[in-house]
Amino acid sequence: MKNIITHTKTLKYNDGTLTNIQDNIAIEFPLTIIIDGEEFATMVCSPTHLEELVIGFLAAEGLIRLSSDIEHLSIDESLGFAYINLKNKQSINKDFYSKRFIGSCCGKSRQFYFHNDARTAKTIQRTTTLTIDQCFHLMKLMQEQSTDFKQTGGVHNAALCTSDELIISRTDIGRHNALDKIYGYCLQKKMPRADKVLAFSGRLSSEVLLKVAKIGIGIILSKSAPTTLGIDLANDLGITMVGFIRQNQLNVYSHPERIILNHAQL
Amino acid sequence: MKNIITHTKTLKYNDGTLTNIQDNIAIEFPLTIIIDGEEFATMVCSPTHLEELVIGFLAAEGLIRLSSDIEHLSIDESLGFAYINLKNKQSINKDFYSKRFIGSCCGKSRQFYFHNDARTAKTIQRTTTLTIDQCFHLMKLMQEQSTDFKQTGGVHNAALCTSDELIISRTDIGRHNALDKIYGYCLQKKMPRADKVLAFSGRLSSEVLLKVAKIGIGIILSKSAPTTLGIDLANDLGITMVGFIRQNQLNVYSHPERIILNHAQL
Repeated sequence: MKNIITHTKTLKYNDGTLTNIQDNIAIEFPLTIIIDGEEFATMVCSPTHLEELVIGFLAAEGLIRLSSDIEHLSIDESLGFAYINLKNKQSINKDFYSKRFIGSCCGKSRQFYFHNDARTAKTIQRTTTLTIDQCFHLMKLMQEQSTDFKQTGGVHNAALCTSDELIISRTDIGRHNALDKIYGYCLQKKMPRADKVLAFSGRLSSEVLLKVAKIGIGIILSKSAPTTLGIDLANDLGITMVGFIRQNQLNVYSHPERIILNHAQL
Repeated sequence: MKNIITHTKTLKYNDGTLTNIQDNIAIEFPLTIIIDGEEFATMVCSPTHLEELVIGFLAAEGLIRLSSDIEHLSIDESLGFAYINLKNKQSINKDFYSKRFIGSCCGKSRQFYFHNDARTAKTIQRTTTLTIDQCFHLMKLMQEQSTDFKQTGGVHNAALCTSDELIISRTDIGRHNALDKIYGYCLQKKMPRADKVLAFSGRLSSEVLLKVAKIGIGIILSKSAPTTLGIDLANDLGITMVGFIRQNQLNVYSHPERIILNHAQL
């Protein structure tokens, strides 16, 4: 909970009565990324696991491949700056990072990437499978860890899992940041990802699916809804996407070959 | 509903049974903004009210002040491109639009703006008031309009209101896009905003509050939670922020002087 929420004086109306209360509010923290002395981006985030966040973000942007591509990383938490020196100094062409890329193979889908996504998003070919019961079990484990959401209604959670166990869980006000923290953790620990599963609280949009492909994970579970572009990318990138996991229901939106009915029920 | 959702084949698990269903999925549409022949940005959005979206986005970015600052605007919906010519050709320095700005008055808050925000976000001084009952009524009107969310679980809504009536409601997969569409509508119609109220489905983060200040509206109502930076900016920018509006409860996070108990209860 440290650094995710704080207490703030709030005027509460409840059925005819106004009172001053101390409310739990999600902290939103601006972090500016300075690469080799140049301002690269400012993100707003929950100020936990900031090193993981920065490493994951740099990898997702295609600026590093491994944690060891970073020569130096220091974070000034009081002012909200992260200073990075890369081993391979490169002139970063910022235009490159937001230019839309329309591939030549856009007959059916795959119509939407940015240049750097096309370089870093990998097609997932691993064939780990998960039973329906495991899907429910992993989402339950993630939700048990996420007390912050219940307290503030304002944060997202992502959990890195094996097919049976939760490895780590990360929380952030930004959906993408929660995934970047997981990515950064994996790079710091040199952890293989192809056999892992992500459990997630947020919507399954194109940005989320690109991030999952970059991390290199083949199954994502969420309690939330997908978008059309999220489904298209999941199909293209070889990712199994399971959404709307609630009580005893779920929907499989892509690559259903990795999801199997429970053995007891076959 | 047109252009917000589509039907997609989905594999549904429900209490032991797998079936193929047609599910309602939110459409996510990439739109690339070309200004005077140069690629400026790509946004993903729900493909409705695209002219409003583009006009609102350009104004929020500080590139135009009035709808008439645009010489020409055309949208190619099949490829997802918006072509804009501005009356005042300016060389757009893209760096300028993402550089963090730390003002000299950062003793207490106001510590986080971007350069273009500092130019375009206005402090709200109008003193329209709203009763608690009106807060509940406007949120109810907005929610009655938002059937898409119930169907897909994946879109946000924003409604422009007077203190008693809903004027227009806009839907988008992106919270900020829904607000940009409202902004674009106001600019197209030359509608005064200082006496209006926004009802909103999304979280009250710093980005949302900056957008509300740019539109020039002094009261925002939401069923969702705020963040700390959202509250700081609302206080600084003179915006009354009411959140967690659910059943007969709500919280007032900033400038409570504009919210009054119902006359009947005084």
